Amino acid sequence: MITFVTTNPGKFREVSAKLAPLGIRLARRDRAYPELQADRLEDVVRFAAGLVAKEVRGEFLIDDSGLFVEALGGFPGVYSSYVYRTLGPAGLVRLLQGRRERAARFETVFLLGNRGRPPRVFRGECEGTIARIPRGHGGFGFDPIFVPTGARRTFGEMSLREKNAISHRARAAEALAHHLRRRRG
Amino acid sequence: MITFVTTNPGKFREVSAKLAPLGIRLARRDRAYPELQADRLEDVVRFAAGLVAKEVRGEFLIDDSGLFVEALGGFPGVYSSYVYRTLGPAGLVRLLQGRRERAARFETVFLLGNRGRPPRVFRGECEGTIARIPRGHGGFGFDPIFVPTGARRTFGEMSLREKNAISHRARAAEALAHHLRRRRG
Repeated sequence: MITFVTTNPGKFREVSAKLAPLGIRLARRDRAYPELQADRLEDVVRFAAGLVAKEVRGEFLIDDSGLFVEALGGFPGVYSSYVYRTLGPAGLVRLLQGRRERAARFETVFLLGNRGRPPRVFRGECEGTIARIPRGHGGFGFDPIFVPTGARRTFGEMSLREKNAISHRARAAEALAHHLRRRRG
Repeated sequence: MITFVTTNPGKFREVSAKLAPLGIRLARRDRAYPELQADRLEDVVRFAAGLVAKEVRGEFLIDDSGLFVEALGGFPGVYSSYVYRTLGPAGLVRLLQGRRERAARFETVFLLGNRGRPPRVFRGECEGTIARIPRGHGGFGFDPIFVPTGARRTFGEMSLREKNAISHRARAAEALAHHLRRRRG
């Protein structure tokens, strides 16, 4: 049993579904924890892990995600949810108006922690480009302006199933599942 | 003696100069502390105070500042230094291109802490508008695109002395000085 500390029920369902076939059950703890201002997602979850470890007994899972736009020096990065709430997808598109360099990547980091033991971090990435206008209503956050490499549609135009086949979060969850499978032997 | 925890020597000089006439000496501790992701500066310094109090003996001072643009839902706010490093003043101007609503405010918050006692928070604001293009090379951060209310020039076009007569940081430092003066009796 691993405690997944997240206020997001959709995320909990998604990760639970990935781990269920391995016989690993997740319990949900619906609780926010302090998130650091930092340049890397990994620093955010490592700092939070120190605080969460004081409150949760046994093994726990936390995660963080962000969209990193190359031509904007990695902006909005770890602040993606704040930037989504303030500028929105339209603001991000405006920042890239007239620019040909539109490369971006979504990143998710999972941290598996347990008080007194060194934490393990699992990363998932999805590379792509920023669309010229938002398209589609699926997913959440910046999904409607992100076109993954090899696709023509944005994450916002894909079904959850299509997105989950290639998404950063799915890849990070797979890395985590791989570790848990090996550990079980 | 109060310990001012800051990595910024210019800021240390500025605040020292404000408090010297009161016979209050500041010691500098050149050390970064964890900054929280939050919507309000006050939440950032209150969280940090809990950590700093464990490391500093006696009374200490910490601060945080940000630029809050009304038409952008308060963006970049507590993330101003990150947004300055990634988008820069030109990025902020681009986000407001063609918009008539250009109101913004600079805010500084000082926190005076001492382990085991409730902290005191002092705030300073400076209202103004975002210029259409960056002007001047004075100050730092977003100063070249901020025109304080009642002025025609940006903070970047003012001398340090002119800026310090009206700035958010100067006002917050005055509120702090006022408190220290009263306390001394």
